[in-house]
Amino acid sequence: MDILDIIDKKEKRQKLSREELKYVIDGYLNGSIKDYQMSALLTEIDLLGLTEEETINLTDIMLNSGEILDLGFDNITDKHSTGGVGDKTTIVLAPLVASLGVKVAKMSGRGLGHTGGTIDKLESIKGFQTSMTLNQFKEQVNKINIALVGQMGNLVPADKKIYALRDVTGTVDSIPLIASSIMSKKLASGASNIVIDLKVGNGALVNNLEEAKELANLMVKIGKNNNKKTACVLTNMDEPLGYAVGNSIEVLEAINTLKGHGPEDLTNLVIKLASLMVSMGLNIEESEAEEKVKENLYNGKGYEKLLEWVEAQNGDINNIPLAKHSKIISSPKEGYISAINALEIGKLSRKLGAGRLTKDEKIDLTVGIIINHKVGDYIKKGVPLAQIIYNEKEITNDDIISCFKISEEKIEKPKLIIDIIK
Amino acid sequence: MDILDIIDKKEKRQKLSREELKYVIDGYLNGSIKDYQMSALLTEIDLLGLTEEETINLTDIMLNSGEILDLGFDNITDKHSTGGVGDKTTIVLAPLVASLGVKVAKMSGRGLGHTGGTIDKLESIKGFQTSMTLNQFKEQVNKINIALVGQMGNLVPADKKIYALRDVTGTVDSIPLIASSIMSKKLASGASNIVIDLKVGNGALVNNLEEAKELANLMVKIGKNNNKKTACVLTNMDEPLGYAVGNSIEVLEAINTLKGHGPEDLTNLVIKLASLMVSMGLNIEESEAEEKVKENLYNGKGYEKLLEWVEAQNGDINNIPLAKHSKIISSPKEGYISAINALEIGKLSRKLGAGRLTKDEKIDLTVGIIINHKVGDYIKKGVPLAQIIYNEKEITNDDIISCFKISEEKIEKPKLIIDIIK
Repeated sequence: MDILDIIDKKEKRQKLSREELKYVIDGYLNGSIKDYQMSALLTEIDLLGLTEEETINLTDIMLNSGEILDLGFDNITDKHSTGGVGDKTTIVLAPLVASLGVKVAKMSGRGLGHTGGTIDKLESIKGFQTSMTLNQFKEQVNKINIALVGQMGNLVPADKKIYALRDVTGTVDSIPLIASSIMSKKLASGASNIVIDLKVGNGALVNNLEEAKELANLMVKIGKNNNKKTACVLTNMDEPLGYAVGNSIEVLEAINTLKGHGPEDLTNLVIKLASLMVSMGLNIEESEAEEKVKENLYNGKGYEKLLEWVEAQNGDINNIPLAKHSKIISSPKEGYISAINALEIGKLSRKLGAGRLTKDEKIDLTVGIIINHKVGDYIKKGVPLAQIIYNEKEITNDDIISCFKISEEKIEKPKLIIDIIK
Repeated sequence: MDILDIIDKKEKRQKLSREELKYVIDGYLNGSIKDYQMSALLTEIDLLGLTEEETINLTDIMLNSGEILDLGFDNITDKHSTGGVGDKTTIVLAPLVASLGVKVAKMSGRGLGHTGGTIDKLESIKGFQTSMTLNQFKEQVNKINIALVGQMGNLVPADKKIYALRDVTGTVDSIPLIASSIMSKKLASGASNIVIDLKVGNGALVNNLEEAKELANLMVKIGKNNNKKTACVLTNMDEPLGYAVGNSIEVLEAINTLKGHGPEDLTNLVIKLASLMVSMGLNIEESEAEEKVKENLYNGKGYEKLLEWVEAQNGDINNIPLAKHSKIISSPKEGYISAINALEIGKLSRKLGAGRLTKDEKIDLTVGIIINHKVGDYIKKGVPLAQIIYNEKEITNDDIISCFKISEEKIEKPKLIIDIIK
């Protein structure tokens, strides 16, 4: 076998066998296949696609390229988000479902580009530890049903190396490559139930609904093929989720949501995702799960679980620092908000220091943007449009204003939950 | 501008502007665009093609990436072959047209893979020098109308770097990339008249006739766009050209051809290419040119020019060493030769030591294979099929026999010259 023959076979639109895909992944990991050769094959896959069988094989080979976590529990429920702007869902969702007896043993990532990461957000809670040993992790899950870490073990090294290459070769947006990347990581982390929040819109990885559905179906198929309960919720990411975009300010919004006072969109999303997770984790009907979820969201038990969780990971919930300065930007005109550009808001938040362009960049956890309205709201001229919380790095009022479209016509609130595929 | 935006634009099937192509070539040469990024873009081009305008722009940008030779003559005629097995045409053609007053100032390459190179072949003549200064080169052309060197100046560095990458990323077979590579080099070498011998068949770069025609039209268009007289001759490369495949044995065959005793296919090809070159170089009708060519081929003037040329470059025409051993392989059966696999003959010759797989490999100029028959010949069982001339490295009789297909049905001789595009 030879990488040039495999590149040539793919160019001729022929199916790659499991052995050929394994040869590629092994060779890339051991360095005998070079970056530029892998880049050629990834570009072909990006342009020509992969069959379902090829994608399932690729995922399995990537999954087996490293450790597969065995947590010793037979019923772990996990949620994955494909990443968006203002997405603090995990911080609300994880303690909420754990409070109902569902085991959540979760690995999360850091933010990159215009999207935030749960690990960064949780670290804005003074003292919160995001790394622990496997034993500590298991013990905590056993004791309080919830634990969350940044990274553990050498899971899916093939994905790490391939993802880094995709990031610099314009092959991030390939549906089969996204599916194999997400699913190999989820399968390696040892969950038996997987709920995926697939963001669709201008602030998301996928902005075309057809492609999102294709991706969702593919991921659900891969999950089931591995005997995991899998569901995928397609959610709107044209405007930010909730109001806060940053790190500490998103944690504060998550706390409010667990106290029953969250933004409508975030609250609804949490209820939907939590219901799916609880239904899978406790093996009950979704409608029954939803009742339980709502109960613990409004009776404070979800919030109590958050407190327990933060304490277990050494965090001080009463010490979430905010930046020194704050500035309010007013609406330049009256009308209906017809669009809030999530991608731009994410980029502006990064410019304030809340995000990073490269993995090694330091970020400022205390800064961010709070938008004061959502799409569909009617606002008067001069009312606060958004609030900037900042330290040294600044952005202009116009930067913010240009993210909002305000029109005279009445605008319907967009549907947050677009579709559920399971 | 950003390479990721350009890769993305190409993925979306949008046309790349001249500025974008220049950004790519400049960035790749200065190292700011990485191999793996260039590989992604080249793979896209391989799969999606380029428009004629994009190809013309790319060629021009590559051409201007380095020196453009100014030889001080306003009428240099050049020939380029896309490379085949047994292709010793230049060694016959160059002195033949020079003997008619056409100026030939030529740069040639070395062999790689299963194809040979004129520079290697000429070096099998004891003492023949293939490098000289620009002044020596000009002086020789001025004095005897002919000079041939291996390399001169820093011509088209963009092609050198891109070609090396294409070679290891499966993007060698892209029509617009082949066209821009060949034409940028020809244009940089300062010729005003260009004749291209485009080989088509299993021993050639292009083995599909439709693609060959597309490539020919593209190259002729690029040439004319640069105010050069350009013609492209499509010739069959399913079987080797002539009988000899190696280095010294090809030179001996070339000498025989200049003496008027050459193989029919090689002689006909030389007459056709020479007529085109003489017609362009002397600005006369092709029929008139053909008469002159035939005259000098058979009256010995072409051969005299060869002697003059070899002497000018310090070669000793009477000292062309051959390998120590020789072995004749007999035909295993009677019938018509229906195919002689040029690609395999080329590979076997390389195995004997006559060719190289990587640029730095040393080769044995004295070894090779002489086939004794051509496609369409009728042969009896036991007659000589081929002769191996070898030193230490050997191949088996079966290796040779498997290159020949012998059938009972009568086979027509294949047409050597398939098409002429100008």
